[in-house]
Formats: sequence, C-alpha cells, structure tokens
Amino acid sequence: MSLYKHILVATDFGDDCEKVAIKALSLSNNEAKVSLIHVLEPLDSIYGGEAYGATAIQLQQIQDEINRNTGGHLKEFGEKMGVPQEDQHLKVGHHTKEIRKFAEENQCDLIVLGSHGRHGLGLLLGSTANSILHGAQCDVLAVRVS
Amino acid sequence: MSLYKHILVATDFGDDCEKVAIKALSLSNNEAKVSLIHVLEPLDSIYGGEAYGATAIQLQQIQDEINRNTGGHLKEFGEKMGVPQEDQHLKVGHHTKEIRKFAEENQCDLIVLGSHGRHGLGLLLGSTANSILHGAQCDVLAVRVS
Repeated sequence: MSLYKHILVATDFGDDCEKVAIKALSLSNNEAKVSLIHVLEPLDSIYGGEAYGATAIQLQQIQDEINRNTGGHLKEFGEKMGVPQEDQHLKVGHHTKEIRKFAEENQCDLIVLGSHGRHGLGLLLGSTANSILHGAQCDVLAVRVS
Repeated sequence: MSLYKHILVATDFGDDCEKVAIKALSLSNNEAKVSLIHVLEPLDSIYGGEAYGATAIQLQQIQDEINRNTGGHLKEFGEKMGVPQEDQHLKVGHHTKEIRKFAEENQCDLIVLGSHGRHGLGLLLGSTANSILHGAQCDVLAVRVS
C-alpha cells in the first residue's frame, strides 16, 4: 500500500532527474497517482523588459521556442518514466510558487524533488527544495542528488 | 521492498511525533532498520555560563535532570513505536549537527522529521528541517505537521 495518494515530482531534467522520479514511482507503489511538473522561469523576469538590447517581441519569440523545446523534453521524460501525458505539466512562473500552487490545487500529499546537499552554493534546486519545504501544505521528500 | 535500508527519525516529542514516526515505519516496510534520535540542546549553550544567576554546577544539575527525563520520554516513545532500545539515541548538542553526524556515521539513507509548513515563524523544527536538508548526504523526508 502506498503512504500517499498523489505524488508530485518536480523535475529540472538535470543529470539525476531519473533517480528522483524513480524514487517517487517506487513510493507510489503502482497505487498513488504520479504527476510530473517542470517550471520555466519566464525570460522577462530574468532579463527584464528591454535589457540586453532585446525587444519584448524578441524575448517572446525566444520564450516560445524555449517552451516548445521544454515541452518536448517533458514529454520524452514522461514517456520514459511511464507517466501519461495528461499528468505531465509545464508551467511558466516562479518555481516555488507554481509547484506549491499545483500541489494545493491538485491535492498532492507528497512533493518529491532533487536536492544538492551542498551548503551555500545557492543552487537552484537546493534553494527550491528549501523554500518548497517552508510553505508546503504536504510532505516533501528531498532526494539527494550529486 | 523498502526504498531505504536505514531510516533515521528525528523526534521532538511534539504533538505530531507519532505521525512522523508512523510514516517512517511504514516506509521501512518491516525491512529497513529504523533508528530514533532526539537531540537536546545543552542548557549552557542556551543560557550561557553564569547568566540568570545560575552557577555552572546548578546548570549541570538541571541538565542532568532534563537528560534523565528526556531519556525516559525517548524510551517510552520508542516502545510505543516498536523501536528497540538499542536503536533509540539521545544526543546532547546542536540539532542539525548531531542529526547529520549520526546519519553519516550510521549510513542512514533517509532522515525523516516533522516540518511546520509556516513561513517566517522561525520554529525550531522548521528551521531544523531546512538546515538538515541543506547539508544532508542522504534523502530527507519532511512530514507536514500542524
């Protein structure tokens, strides 16, 4: 029997993302629903409106291209992990906010994500794991990745 | 089959500590070894040497009394959870440091602890979960407690 009913796997397509997903699938014990989420930070929140000489239209074109590519990665990864397409979710926004929001709206009872056990490096996933942990309304499993 | 071989449950004897331990036991699937740890912050690190008019000897007496009481709580809790006495560990020191140290020295592959999902309250366990997460060499499951 699975301890959980709906497990959300936050993935970044990094080297260890399979390891993270495999743990989540194993915890689901073929009973819990498993959803995949990948969050893209919007380009204009990173680079600002017209910084670096890019116009809003150019940024939008690049963003569309990134979204398409990432959608492809997510589909490929989902297929490999046996997660059906309707349970693969690509979101654009702030990592922590989108992951928490999805978990709350979809009654996820466990969020699984990778975490680098390094101190002070300010790595994206490390800090995401921490902030998810702080505000999450459900359990959080941080899987140690190298 | 259990995903893990040695699960370390960090407990604070709070209202939800049974909930946390039950999840760990369930994940162990009667296969993984489960160890309990409770860490006492030493009184003199909290109150300082002779602050509050207490002499070092008085502080030591109070510390001894606390250690005895806490040892009793741990034994009682361990019995209730079915964790044998040799797998119940009472440590005096800094929470994060002692939990990580025990996990590393004993090849724990999962640390389970309670976490309050509240932001900015600076609760003891919340911050412990965060700092454990940052430096841990193994997976960390933060169980949401109220």
